[in-house]
Amino acid sequence: MVSKRWFRVQSIGTVQRDSVPIPAEGEFYDPWQETTLEIDERWSEGLIGIEEFSHLVVVFYLDRARRARKPPVARAAENQPEARPVGFFATRTPRRPNPIGLSYPRLLRRKGNRLIVSGIDAWPGTPILDIKGYYTRDEQRIDATVPDWLSSLWERHDQERS
Amino acid sequence: MVSKRWFRVQSIGTVQRDSVPIPAEGEFYDPWQETTLEIDERWSEGLIGIEEFSHLVVVFYLDRARRARKPPVARAAENQPEARPVGFFATRTPRRPNPIGLSYPRLLRRKGNRLIVSGIDAWPGTPILDIKGYYTRDEQRIDATVPDWLSSLWERHDQERS
Repeated sequence: MVSKRWFRVQSIGTVQRDSVPIPAEGEFYDPWQETTLEIDERWSEGLIGIEEFSHLVVVFYLDRARRARKPPVARAAENQPEARPVGFFATRTPRRPNPIGLSYPRLLRRKGNRLIVSGIDAWPGTPILDIKGYYTRDEQRIDATVPDWLSSLWERHDQERS
Repeated sequence: MVSKRWFRVQSIGTVQRDSVPIPAEGEFYDPWQETTLEIDERWSEGLIGIEEFSHLVVVFYLDRARRARKPPVARAAENQPEARPVGFFATRTPRRPNPIGLSYPRLLRRKGNRLIVSGIDAWPGTPILDIKGYYTRDEQRIDATVPDWLSSLWERHDQERS
């Protein structure tokens, strides 16, 4: 059965990061730097009380990604020779049917319609689709486990950065 | 500054729940029941390896929600008299600029392009926009805290259900 239907979504704000340059090829991007999420004035009232959350859920549209028109071929994450191929749903590739990104930054403070956060993995200028408070009961899955290839990948990243 | 831009997103599957009726008014909906996510055949290859995750991130389009065309007025969650008004971004109301829902169900098993999960808070027939493995490093924020009004609300819900 094919369920294909299209829907329209709108940006409600933008990831600003005026002061921080995009890292050059081979440089590490620091996702923990401070970043401002600028929410459009028309939605300002929706932000009342958001500052009482320690973290946010940010839904954004990866507008610099090419949408996958057919399934990208399964392959090992970051082409690790020892890992077996996995499909794109198991990865965080932006090349997927809907290039929707999620991030869960710490909310440092709110200044009107600007949210200053730390820990968002998105390029400057990325359109934001939704903001939600991080609801521990909904977002946290304390007993969650991940595949071995992913733990290995994280370990390797840690080693490269240290 | 207004960033307004529109983007198109497509359903990649549907929440099936043939066997479970929609609860009647006043009945509790049990989000922990088993549910099947039926992913369209064309994206099947993308699911390879997803079964190695204990939990999923499911992004869906709340197609029965009315989109908010202007900001819904800030009000106390579930109209609790003792709580102060909060904006819609601080709540999980489907009446928001983009009716995008998130859920993090336990993945029980995969049967081809069908994912059998437990713990998804979505109506039967809801269009799915994306599936991701639950990446503990990305989704878990162990030190996250929520506002007092929300803890109180959860406590009340627990009492009502017990």
